[in-house]
Amino acid sequence: MQPSTATNLWFYPCYRRSPFFAATQKAGCQGYDIYNHMLLPGGYADAETEYWHLVRDVTLWDVSVERQVEITGPDAFRFTNLLTPRDLTQCGVWQCKYVVLTAADGGIVNDPVLARIGENHFWLALANSDALLWAKGVAINAGMDVEICEPDVSPLQVQGPKSKQVVQALFGEKVLALKYYDCMSADLDGIPVVVTRTGWTGEVGYEIYLRDGSRGEALWDRIMEAGQPHNIKVIAPSEIRRIEAGILNYGHDMTLDNNPYEVGLGWLVDLDQEADFVGKKALKKIKAEGPKRKLVGIEIHGGPLDCWPEAYWPVSSNGNQVGHVTSAAYSPGLKKNIGYALVPIECAGLDTRLTLETPDGKADATVVRKPFVDPKKGIPKS
Amino acid sequence: MQPSTATNLWFYPCYRRSPFFAATQKAGCQGYDIYNHMLLPGGYADAETEYWHLVRDVTLWDVSVERQVEITGPDAFRFTNLLTPRDLTQCGVWQCKYVVLTAADGGIVNDPVLARIGENHFWLALANSDALLWAKGVAINAGMDVEICEPDVSPLQVQGPKSKQVVQALFGEKVLALKYYDCMSADLDGIPVVVTRTGWTGEVGYEIYLRDGSRGEALWDRIMEAGQPHNIKVIAPSEIRRIEAGILNYGHDMTLDNNPYEVGLGWLVDLDQEADFVGKKALKKIKAEGPKRKLVGIEIHGGPLDCWPEAYWPVSSNGNQVGHVTSAAYSPGLKKNIGYALVPIECAGLDTRLTLETPDGKADATVVRKPFVDPKKGIPKS
Repeated sequence: MQPSTATNLWFYPCYRRSPFFAATQKAGCQGYDIYNHMLLPGGYADAETEYWHLVRDVTLWDVSVERQVEITGPDAFRFTNLLTPRDLTQCGVWQCKYVVLTAADGGIVNDPVLARIGENHFWLALANSDALLWAKGVAINAGMDVEICEPDVSPLQVQGPKSKQVVQALFGEKVLALKYYDCMSADLDGIPVVVTRTGWTGEVGYEIYLRDGSRGEALWDRIMEAGQPHNIKVIAPSEIRRIEAGILNYGHDMTLDNNPYEVGLGWLVDLDQEADFVGKKALKKIKAEGPKRKLVGIEIHGGPLDCWPEAYWPVSSNGNQVGHVTSAAYSPGLKKNIGYALVPIECAGLDTRLTLETPDGKADATVVRKPFVDPKKGIPKS
Repeated sequence: MQPSTATNLWFYPCYRRSPFFAATQKAGCQGYDIYNHMLLPGGYADAETEYWHLVRDVTLWDVSVERQVEITGPDAFRFTNLLTPRDLTQCGVWQCKYVVLTAADGGIVNDPVLARIGENHFWLALANSDALLWAKGVAINAGMDVEICEPDVSPLQVQGPKSKQVVQALFGEKVLALKYYDCMSADLDGIPVVVTRTGWTGEVGYEIYLRDGSRGEALWDRIMEAGQPHNIKVIAPSEIRRIEAGILNYGHDMTLDNNPYEVGLGWLVDLDQEADFVGKKALKKIKAEGPKRKLVGIEIHGGPLDCWPEAYWPVSSNGNQVGHVTSAAYSPGLKKNIGYALVPIECAGLDTRLTLETPDGKADATVVRKPFVDPKKGIPKS
């Protein structure tokens, strides 16, 4: 399976390179996405080969494009809680939380992983939008004493069932004590990092946030060395595996035009907390009225999809166009085509039949439960 | 001359397509840039061929990536003036202004063309950053009654010495009355547009802002038809011609880390106006102290450059690295290599000698005046 049709992308200074760029070239990266104004590796081998490596062994990804918004200063806690509907009194130091940032109308500005690495020291590891500008804008008249910047921090992901052994070899026993969404500071022979028990897969995984861009090659080589006995391979973020796991991709499955309730992220909105946050009033109203549309899981019938959607596929119900497919892929583990569609609430019920317009013609689909893979069971490994 | 090395870019839904996308494919677009989360045509023929077409005849560009921030509501004038250091009391209805948006520290958030198409109706035609998020963020606690959105507006550029004849054929005599940076509303057999006497070249040119995305193909075809007698060709934005003209490219020649004074845009900052704007205090201080570095014009000695920089080229003075080249190209009109470098103020004087590290080895350069081409004289046409 190929991702989609390719065109040419010319390298320019405006596409920033990660501290691992040279390593990704050496590893045979075949193309890049542009994400947060940076080059994001898009693939080294075909997507299915990369997928099996991820679910069977262990993989290394350059995700430096997850730029950080760093918030510090005496009011950092209060300000960060103003940016997100999640109740941050529930987030201790050295914990992470998956959060959304919402606009005044409840629209999703970004869906970062938040890491609290000090009482008043927060990182937001961004999805693909300039949420640094958003945060700086909100701060203008907020009357709070905060510093907001993009620090020299570049994450890698180490994902797959054997990732535990790799991080143990690098950081020792203490890293195994990290619970899901915990994080810790570490020093790898002078390379400063933060390690988090997070990732963009349903597999066991870690992220290693490099805190000194000049040490990219050294960190990369250390990880590859530690991973060698475990058959580590360099891959791109796995579109297939993240869909199986029910994970959303900002810019595809949700945008500023979507609120958390309609894309299944209502659990990130704590309306009952005392603190005010941007979008609280709008989200209260949306919740009370119920969302008008919903991002649903779909199973697409017919043979394996050749490639992922290059643009949104129109979705029809009873002959009327009602929505669009936001993501879709053939799952080699589940041996079927899965994806997401944004449809009116009337078409969102389980077992609803939908018709898709794909580049290869019409296809039938059925609304199904997501995630597609139970995180506790995982997927069949063959 | 080729732009630079190419890699693969896979098409995805997150890269939005313009209303003219199909037309750009039909016109033989060979690659795309990603700009404001959209596909921006990067080239149809080699850069030199496109350049000569632009300076001799007339050209059509899909620049729908110039997304608009639309600001309306009772306080739209006051709010827009809060976003930019330019004194907007000097901007009448149906006038445009080139502006910068600045952050609290004076850093440049974006450098849009502002169009005032009503007393309290503004468009900001964005360069490559999510300034919609910035504007929405600033509005949160500004206490002003405004609506901020991205409207269904997609600009095209019609640029080149024969562009006057093309827009005259489309819109009649009245369009010829437009002075530089004026704009007007028009209707082309039911296709709603705004026409501005602006462009990203030193040539005569216009922008046609389509106000109904469903009419992209119709508008494109009408322009191509009107341009046929004048030898119109579809090209990408001309890197060469904009450098000759002294025009800056956001993300290359300036970023959030630069203030207007150091990149030669101090003339966009009206510190003496009564209105407050974001960054006023910081910019007053920067102006009083004088900028610490400067974006200078450079002439690069030696044979014609093969391609444009793929990443910033380091710049040295007396053996010490002091800055970097942000843009460079061989100008076929001037028959020399020209570009910009960001250097400390001590190295910014005319005739300063600099050493560049290019992928082909060291190159000598000299600081020269910009723009490289006098807008009144234009460039030799052969």
